[in-house]
Amino acid sequence: MSATSLHCSAPAAAENVQDSLLLSQPLILQERQQQQQEEQHRTLRRSASNTTSQVAIVGSNLCPIESLDYEITENVLFKQDWRSREKIQIVQYIFMKWTLCFLIGFFVSLVGFFNNLAVENIAGLKFVITSNMMLARKFMAAFIIFSSSNLALALFASLITAFIAPEAAGSGIPEVKAYLNGVDAPAIFSLRTLFVKIVGSISAVSSSLNIGKAGPMVHTGACIAAILGQGGSKKYGLTWKWIRYFKNDRDRRDFVTCGSAAGIAAAFRAPVGGVLFALEEMASWWKSALLWRAFFTTAVVAIVLRALIDVCLRGECGLFGKGGLIMFDVTSADISYHLWDVPPVILLGVIGGILGSLYNSLLQKVLRIYNLINEKGTVYKILLACSISICTSCLLFGLPWIASCRPCPLDPSEPCPTIGRSGNYKKFQCPPGHYNDLASLFFNTNDDAIKNLFSKNTDAEFHHLSMLIFFVTCFFLSIFSYGIVAPSGLFVPVIVTGASYGRFVGMLVSSHSNLNHGLFAVLGSASLLGGSMRMTVSLCVIILELTNNLLLLPLIMLVLLISKTVADAFDANIYDLIMKSKGLPYLEDHSEPYMRQLTVGDVVTGPLQLFHGVEKVSNIVHVLKTTGHNGFPVVDEPPFSESPVLSGLILRAHLVILLKKKAFVPTPMQMFSNSFNEFLADDFAKKGLGNGDRIEDISLSEEEMNMFVDLHPFTNTSPYSVVETMSLAKALLLFREVGLRHLLVIPKVSGGIPVVGILTRHDFMPAHILNLHPMLLRSITRKRLRFQLPSWSKLL
Amino acid sequence: MSATSLHCSAPAAAENVQDSLLLSQPLILQERQQQQQEEQHRTLRRSASNTTSQVAIVGSNLCPIESLDYEITENVLFKQDWRSREKIQIVQYIFMKWTLCFLIGFFVSLVGFFNNLAVENIAGLKFVITSNMMLARKFMAAFIIFSSSNLALALFASLITAFIAPEAAGSGIPEVKAYLNGVDAPAIFSLRTLFVKIVGSISAVSSSLNIGKAGPMVHTGACIAAILGQGGSKKYGLTWKWIRYFKNDRDRRDFVTCGSAAGIAAAFRAPVGGVLFALEEMASWWKSALLWRAFFTTAVVAIVLRALIDVCLRGECGLFGKGGLIMFDVTSADISYHLWDVPPVILLGVIGGILGSLYNSLLQKVLRIYNLINEKGTVYKILLACSISICTSCLLFGLPWIASCRPCPLDPSEPCPTIGRSGNYKKFQCPPGHYNDLASLFFNTNDDAIKNLFSKNTDAEFHHLSMLIFFVTCFFLSIFSYGIVAPSGLFVPVIVTGASYGRFVGMLVSSHSNLNHGLFAVLGSASLLGGSMRMTVSLCVIILELTNNLLLLPLIMLVLLISKTVADAFDANIYDLIMKSKGLPYLEDHSEPYMRQLTVGDVVTGPLQLFHGVEKVSNIVHVLKTTGHNGFPVVDEPPFSESPVLSGLILRAHLVILLKKKAFVPTPMQMFSNSFNEFLADDFAKKGLGNGDRIEDISLSEEEMNMFVDLHPFTNTSPYSVVETMSLAKALLLFREVGLRHLLVIPKVSGGIPVVGILTRHDFMPAHILNLHPMLLRSITRKRLRFQLPSWSKLL
Repeated sequence: MSATSLHCSAPAAAENVQDSLLLSQPLILQERQQQQQEEQHRTLRRSASNTTSQVAIVGSNLCPIESLDYEITENVLFKQDWRSREKIQIVQYIFMKWTLCFLIGFFVSLVGFFNNLAVENIAGLKFVITSNMMLARKFMAAFIIFSSSNLALALFASLITAFIAPEAAGSGIPEVKAYLNGVDAPAIFSLRTLFVKIVGSISAVSSSLNIGKAGPMVHTGACIAAILGQGGSKKYGLTWKWIRYFKNDRDRRDFVTCGSAAGIAAAFRAPVGGVLFALEEMASWWKSALLWRAFFTTAVVAIVLRALIDVCLRGECGLFGKGGLIMFDVTSADISYHLWDVPPVILLGVIGGILGSLYNSLLQKVLRIYNLINEKGTVYKILLACSISICTSCLLFGLPWIASCRPCPLDPSEPCPTIGRSGNYKKFQCPPGHYNDLASLFFNTNDDAIKNLFSKNTDAEFHHLSMLIFFVTCFFLSIFSYGIVAPSGLFVPVIVTGASYGRFVGMLVSSHSNLNHGLFAVLGSASLLGGSMRMTVSLCVIILELTNNLLLLPLIMLVLLISKTVADAFDANIYDLIMKSKGLPYLEDHSEPYMRQLTVGDVVTGPLQLFHGVEKVSNIVHVLKTTGHNGFPVVDEPPFSESPVLSGLILRAHLVILLKKKAFVPTPMQMFSNSFNEFLADDFAKKGLGNGDRIEDISLSEEEMNMFVDLHPFTNTSPYSVVETMSLAKALLLFREVGLRHLLVIPKVSGGIPVVGILTRHDFMPAHILNLHPMLLRSITRKRLRFQLPSWSKLL
Repeated sequence: MSATSLHCSAPAAAENVQDSLLLSQPLILQERQQQQQEEQHRTLRRSASNTTSQVAIVGSNLCPIESLDYEITENVLFKQDWRSREKIQIVQYIFMKWTLCFLIGFFVSLVGFFNNLAVENIAGLKFVITSNMMLARKFMAAFIIFSSSNLALALFASLITAFIAPEAAGSGIPEVKAYLNGVDAPAIFSLRTLFVKIVGSISAVSSSLNIGKAGPMVHTGACIAAILGQGGSKKYGLTWKWIRYFKNDRDRRDFVTCGSAAGIAAAFRAPVGGVLFALEEMASWWKSALLWRAFFTTAVVAIVLRALIDVCLRGECGLFGKGGLIMFDVTSADISYHLWDVPPVILLGVIGGILGSLYNSLLQKVLRIYNLINEKGTVYKILLACSISICTSCLLFGLPWIASCRPCPLDPSEPCPTIGRSGNYKKFQCPPGHYNDLASLFFNTNDDAIKNLFSKNTDAEFHHLSMLIFFVTCFFLSIFSYGIVAPSGLFVPVIVTGASYGRFVGMLVSSHSNLNHGLFAVLGSASLLGGSMRMTVSLCVIILELTNNLLLLPLIMLVLLISKTVADAFDANIYDLIMKSKGLPYLEDHSEPYMRQLTVGDVVTGPLQLFHGVEKVSNIVHVLKTTGHNGFPVVDEPPFSESPVLSGLILRAHLVILLKKKAFVPTPMQMFSNSFNEFLADDFAKKGLGNGDRIEDISLSEEEMNMFVDLHPFTNTSPYSVVETMSLAKALLLFREVGLRHLLVIPKVSGGIPVVGILTRHDFMPAHILNLHPMLLRSITRKRLRFQLPSWSKLL
């Protein structure tokens, strides 16, 4: 069971996953000898002396990280169910689906707005109090207030995260992305997680940690969508009965996609960007109907936010500053750029790409160290969070003292020094008529810092050195802040860091360029985002929606293309790296070159567990208890058919329900008509996430154990199948595109047992395949040589 | 053969397709009796007395509209080829693919720019000359010049289209969309078509017909991409040898997708909109790597266009006016709207949706009538085009006389009346100091009319009645202009019509709304586009990029959502309607409800043609000559194997190559090693579109006819297959998602012949299925009742 715990404890370091796969998949090279395998099936299934060591052999399926099932299950019962659906039910279904999308958009926008409002007020209050103390020149007291309030907020966030919902830590984007790929990590969409994610994110962001709120918003959106889609939370008694149509993985997946789109839309007020983000980065399956649904959801977000902001613009939101949710408006009709502005922009893109990949690899390394600390226990987790908070407070308060005071400009576009909450010219320790440029960046919320950096007509505001200090501090602070046990996003820190980097480059080349420093900051953000997150269209649209300036489009496209290309030469997308280090079995949409050389038969492992069409109860119980498989082939043999015939595939969940309902007969016989009276299709509907029954909870008498079950009505009679000689690449295409959980492998030559094995998601994982076929490791030297090829070859 | 010609003559009316299917698929209800079918195979294949009537039975495959093959073909030869690819070749492949994308973007932007430049200059010259004559009050002469130049231009466009490339008629978007779905209509991507599309579009648009240039630009982009991707045109001796890697359907599909994205990007200067258009409307398969590639292509377009426009802004482009390629800039920082602005916008959306679906159904009816005329001969086609041109000229010149002259505003934002080429205040017949508001709209290019309608601070410029006249005229003119034999788009006419409709509504409700009339025009365009083309995200982004105003976003989203929802209740997307009326077998990504009740075995029709592993040459020739199938199962029987084994699938194209190479042996025997020496994988590479060899071109001697061929090395040993009991809906999912051309159906019970039949694209067409199963027609009454459900059910 150690394999399981390692595999599923999130986050586990990448090496651990390798180990767990080594443990769970012994290096039995499968020889594709039909007879031998056939022998195995029989002996293993029939013998009652199965030891627990069998469990380890099929270990990869034991992990509580379940995979989702997007296949249309075709058993007799479900077919009846579909036929019995009336027109009115179909209309109800459509209506409910749209209503849910509306509700998702509505709730997500409310949460997004409330989130911003809370952060702006809590952080604003903190800054107003400390600023007032600074004005009274009580510097020490100001520092104590500042750092202790930060510590308290960070402590609160990490406490609730560690004790109530550890799944809420981090950004949540990797988990949601894995879910949309078909990996169901436990408890990521529970009501508990949702609560901690919202409250923890507000508290952590208010504590001036260098973390963002966009990632948590995506997770929040997905959570809201998942909870609404499964009809509320059963655990807390909040359930809606009328959402009975969505008890399947496909509809839930669609809702979660819409929810994550709404999350980005609410975080950045970027509705189109949200849809594109969900499409480009999150979703693994997509169709145009879903595009429209996501668009509808984000439109609701946009309209609700717009109405709520109208309220705030009337000044009824307390300390709601200029940064929160208001666009970083860099509109100016006179932006003009020419051919000679292109080289600096290209340079910005190249360095941005290098910085982005450096950022990813450093973050990955820091996460590994943090994992070692976090594994030691909850106290260590919280101590880590607190120490990061204290360090951050010291840096934010200490570093501005380095900067010399600068005299206010003669015709400032806004009051100098800043009065009240947010502004470009923070006074800090300076004498009247002066401002501290570093404090304007550090001693502010991230949103305000971005606004300052993006602002135009402020080319003289910042000193070279200040900008460099700010950039370096942000770069490292954001890397060290992400891994703590609190909800924390990556978007905003990367935007701040990128903006400071871009503005610094702008200062260096300003004599050779027409572009103002604010535009350089925008392009710098784009380059670092492109280098770290590796999105294209969605980032482009998000930046456009943030800055509200379409004239920048060609330059932003150029920067994104260059920085992504450069960064792809070094390492992968930050979310993929985090996902990999958490051990989530993400199925890529492209196959590795060696998969074309392997056949499906080469990777089918382990003894095959199969059932007869009419099976003894004790056999079923035994197999269910000793293996972790989620699907079993059902085969009819001579008493019931002329030759062995593959009847289909039965799911563990359905078997458990059968056992629970105790629909047994004393002798082995088929009984078609009776079974339907006892079962409704609703019984087989997918339960809420992680709420299915377990075999251990079912107790059966000795007599019952000797009875039989007719599995035929509950068997999916036409599962997708491939011939054993098909290449792995081709089978992966089918598995991935159709969204399967099980793929039956049938023999090339008929006559023997009509099924060779079952492929699951784990069988397609490169680590698993390379373990099975160490001779492919021979080509690892080749792999090392073309270190940069895998990331390139994705583009094929 | 009449079935074929009806089915493939483009455009054929929808009824004809029904007829052709009736002809080609006799109503043999398949009883799934294994033995009977088996008998059939043998007798049919073995008997030499096959009459030509057999051809009709398998007619649906005979049609020159081929389907494309996205399956990974796994025969021994191809596997060897992949293994022999060196690292350097992979790098070459990647490099070439990006280079081609760059070239596609570059050429498409050049064509787009040249297209605009030519239209602006030709149409501009025409308007300047006639305006000058009007100033000299030579009204009759002006009309003659105007209408005769229009007629000459339209005649030229229709002449080259009718005689050189009839495939270039229309917008081309339906054909490209069908191609990306896997339907290869003949000659749509030839060099001839490209030439006619570019020249014809310039000439037709310049002739003041109410047609657009965006559709033809998409076709042009796709054409350029396809021609570059297949290494130039063999027919005209323009070939590049170095593009040998892209001789397959998958790579070509990717290029064509990028090309169509580039087309929209060049037509509207909307690079992000172009990518989204290709994604939402055009592509049937999509992955994130392709998203990036399309983004790169459109970024090239954006940058090249930007550079070229810089040249024009310096005034070096002749009569290049404000409309062409310059954005319809409606930026204003002070756009503010509140809750009470929403009801008029919702009204706009609802009426827009109704108008849009009305537009679609009228256009479809007009196209049917035009088809009847066009089928009579080329002369009729050209006469039709000329009469439409004359009518248009009369309306454009005649209608402004209705409008009364309006005095110039006191503080006009631009000269009044207009001097020179383009402007808001056309003088027409009016006295000095006055302008004719209808002439400002009619007597202008469409681009300039849109610009006038979108412009702000011109609320008093137009009279109610003028706007209504303009709207009605545009609405009908665009419907009657689309079907003529010339390249003609739908985007721009719909934008103009929608803008006038929106502005008219804006005038009616102006007393109750804050929004200015220009904004109403933008929203009106959005609503009509949404009602007719039914896109969401892409239209939204295209409109944003056209108008350069992000603050409008929530309103545009709202209008699009409403108009699409309303219109979907009535009929389908305009491109789908045109595609259907052209008889292109488009495979939807959702299945009809009745497909869940049918099994795959229910739709497998016709006698199955199969080959032995080692087959007699005369048999192959006979089968190839008497059927139109593109793929044949290969079965090994007792002399070569113990029991009948399905060896795989062989393609017609590969068989023809085998026959051409004459790799025969005198006796039936397997010969593995020899075959490879004679063949290179390149021999089997997909030829350029429609350039494959034909069986009729191969002549064989009597002696050769009696020899044998070993098909094993050339057989795809692991084609995708489904069990005959699988539901059609589930099989369709596999067929569609993986992008297949053939799907093997295997029997549930092994023992007999190991294959039941082959499914192709045509077998999934609703018309075909309903023909096979007339008992489903029983539910047609049900279908009629829920007339509006099918379009809704797409959203599930």
